[in-house]
Amino acid sequence: MDPKEFLMIPGPTPVPDEVLLEMARHPLGHRTKEFSKIFMAATAALKKLAACEDEVFILTSSGTGAMEAAIANTLSPGDEVLSLVCGVFGERWAKIAEAYGCKVERVVVPAGQPITLDLLRKRLQEDKGRLFKAVTVTHNETSTGVINDLQQLSLAIREHGALCIADTVTSFGAVPISFSAWGVDVMVAGSQKALMLPPGLAVVFCGERALQAYETSKCPKFYFDFGRYRKSLESETTPFTPNVSMILALKSSLDMIQQEGIVAIGSRHERMKKALRAGLTGMGLKLFVPESCASPTITAALPPASLSVDAIRRTMKERYQIRLADGQEELKNKIFRVGHMGYVFERDILMTLAALETCLHLLGYRCPSGIGVGSALTEIAALTGSPAK
Amino acid sequence: MDPKEFLMIPGPTPVPDEVLLEMARHPLGHRTKEFSKIFMAATAALKKLAACEDEVFILTSSGTGAMEAAIANTLSPGDEVLSLVCGVFGERWAKIAEAYGCKVERVVVPAGQPITLDLLRKRLQEDKGRLFKAVTVTHNETSTGVINDLQQLSLAIREHGALCIADTVTSFGAVPISFSAWGVDVMVAGSQKALMLPPGLAVVFCGERALQAYETSKCPKFYFDFGRYRKSLESETTPFTPNVSMILALKSSLDMIQQEGIVAIGSRHERMKKALRAGLTGMGLKLFVPESCASPTITAALPPASLSVDAIRRTMKERYQIRLADGQEELKNKIFRVGHMGYVFERDILMTLAALETCLHLLGYRCPSGIGVGSALTEIAALTGSPAK
Repeated sequence: MDPKEFLMIPGPTPVPDEVLLEMARHPLGHRTKEFSKIFMAATAALKKLAACEDEVFILTSSGTGAMEAAIANTLSPGDEVLSLVCGVFGERWAKIAEAYGCKVERVVVPAGQPITLDLLRKRLQEDKGRLFKAVTVTHNETSTGVINDLQQLSLAIREHGALCIADTVTSFGAVPISFSAWGVDVMVAGSQKALMLPPGLAVVFCGERALQAYETSKCPKFYFDFGRYRKSLESETTPFTPNVSMILALKSSLDMIQQEGIVAIGSRHERMKKALRAGLTGMGLKLFVPESCASPTITAALPPASLSVDAIRRTMKERYQIRLADGQEELKNKIFRVGHMGYVFERDILMTLAALETCLHLLGYRCPSGIGVGSALTEIAALTGSPAK
Repeated sequence: MDPKEFLMIPGPTPVPDEVLLEMARHPLGHRTKEFSKIFMAATAALKKLAACEDEVFILTSSGTGAMEAAIANTLSPGDEVLSLVCGVFGERWAKIAEAYGCKVERVVVPAGQPITLDLLRKRLQEDKGRLFKAVTVTHNETSTGVINDLQQLSLAIREHGALCIADTVTSFGAVPISFSAWGVDVMVAGSQKALMLPPGLAVVFCGERALQAYETSKCPKFYFDFGRYRKSLESETTPFTPNVSMILALKSSLDMIQQEGIVAIGSRHERMKKALRAGLTGMGLKLFVPESCASPTITAALPPASLSVDAIRRTMKERYQIRLADGQEELKNKIFRVGHMGYVFERDILMTLAALETCLHLLGYRCPSGIGVGSALTEIAALTGSPAK
């Protein structure tokens, strides 16, 4: 028998059984009261989870589609955009804005580092003419495992007057976010991350200033046109046939999230991050990102000097059916990434560390037996005050 | 116990259990050999089913997203487009092309009528300067239940030189189509129709001339950018995280389609159409569309003069949990539509007719008991040479 594949990658992520069962239901008609009820409940739960006072649109697409929607609905060709880039997904904002004819300036920091408030403030202060129409921000950079301080960055952008357009694809549902209070204008989330669903749905939160910007935006759009989604919401539906199965599943996962509570979920992810980082360091591996900006959902580490990323990932897969992710683009073969978001718990971290230690041993790397799990347990005990020392 | 809701609407449609079970599997990683194998098998099966010699792109979106992709990837602002409009979905092509800045001319026929070859030829012959860059065609018009002769229309468009951009959302998988031989250039299909899946995936077939047009197209695009899909296909994957669950399900449904064979499937749909039309006429109802252009997947009928569409639909739902569709836009409350595409069989037609007859009786309409099913059975017997008379 094949042991079940286990995804410790930054999406798709493990999906709870109750959510999978919703996926397996016969689809409802999308123009029925029954569907509208579930759809509106999911919409309300998303707004509550994001502390969003304005609009939320559920799109049938992956997160990139929602990123494109965020640009195409608020900007016009020729608009000046500042893109804060600390990895592949920060760069994606810039590429999308360029595809729509915006003039994009990038603030780039080396991979593994965050976008600091000072760096942003400095650039915004130089913009005396207030030419930047929007600033794009990546909350949690999936390619490096860095989390930026979205709250601080967003408030600084609001002070300048530009729109804050944020990617929270790999943080939403794992990290408490206050969309309206933080002054974020457009925010994008995806289903296959901490929302504990398969890929195929995306979510866009849209504040009042973004809705105003929509009115004058000249980028072409149709399938992702916010105006159509907003109008359809008045009759409790979507403008185009949505993925009804996934909206049922979304309602189910949002119920689970509400039950645990986003504060408790945030603590769980913090704990998993710290346990995993302690375990990896305990085994002698080098972490790619400093503690101060380490993502609670993705941890990147360097392989021991003697081993390749490929060998570690392959051994983990062959021996334990645990999937880890490679680095992306220029970080390919340089780091490996462990995803720990959504339906992932401490025991999964311990299992992953135990499996990784075995694989490192098998590949000839030497570290004391049990040091990875041991270090993680010590960290957890320190965090929780539990007696296990 | 609630009897299971049964969808006799033009999408979502009933989904086979084996396909639903694929939806309920834990998602695979989308950058794995295992996923690539299934993805490439689905891609190959789609090409075979469409008799397409060039490219097929699987998009995570609904059909409208794929329609937008077809326009945005082949045209440029200012291009002249001829839109053949015989209903809501024909008009959608025109609206999308206009959203992208194309100059759109519409050929409109009254609802319930097809686009004839003569009408198209006449307009194309007037275009001495060959100004039309593309002609948009709806193969099967979902809003009225009309099927156009895509083969003839497409060949005439090819003769003119414009691109033939076709919507086969509610025909693909139910009607044999020869994409390359018919000279179609771009063709769009959706998952929640005859492909027997929930909503959430769309498919775009792309011929050599469309791929050439892509090279000079100036419409902005990113998520739907054909170039990115084409490049990713070289490494057997998609540019952005696809709906992996639905691609597994698609592979499963395509296996079922291949097993029955598209010719047999086409005959089944023809038979269902004829049986349903015979049954409806037998009960004294008026069909909205003449036999010569009647869709094999959607049948529209007028309610008896004394009854409203709403009363019929509500009674069918309350008494039998069978969903029928209303008319759309100006046909709302004027016609009701019965979808019979994909995982629908003769027995479903008989059940629907029997239920409809009961409901009409309940609402005070008089017709001889059993006349609906009786008329359908006679028609089936005539079609199949079966002894049941």
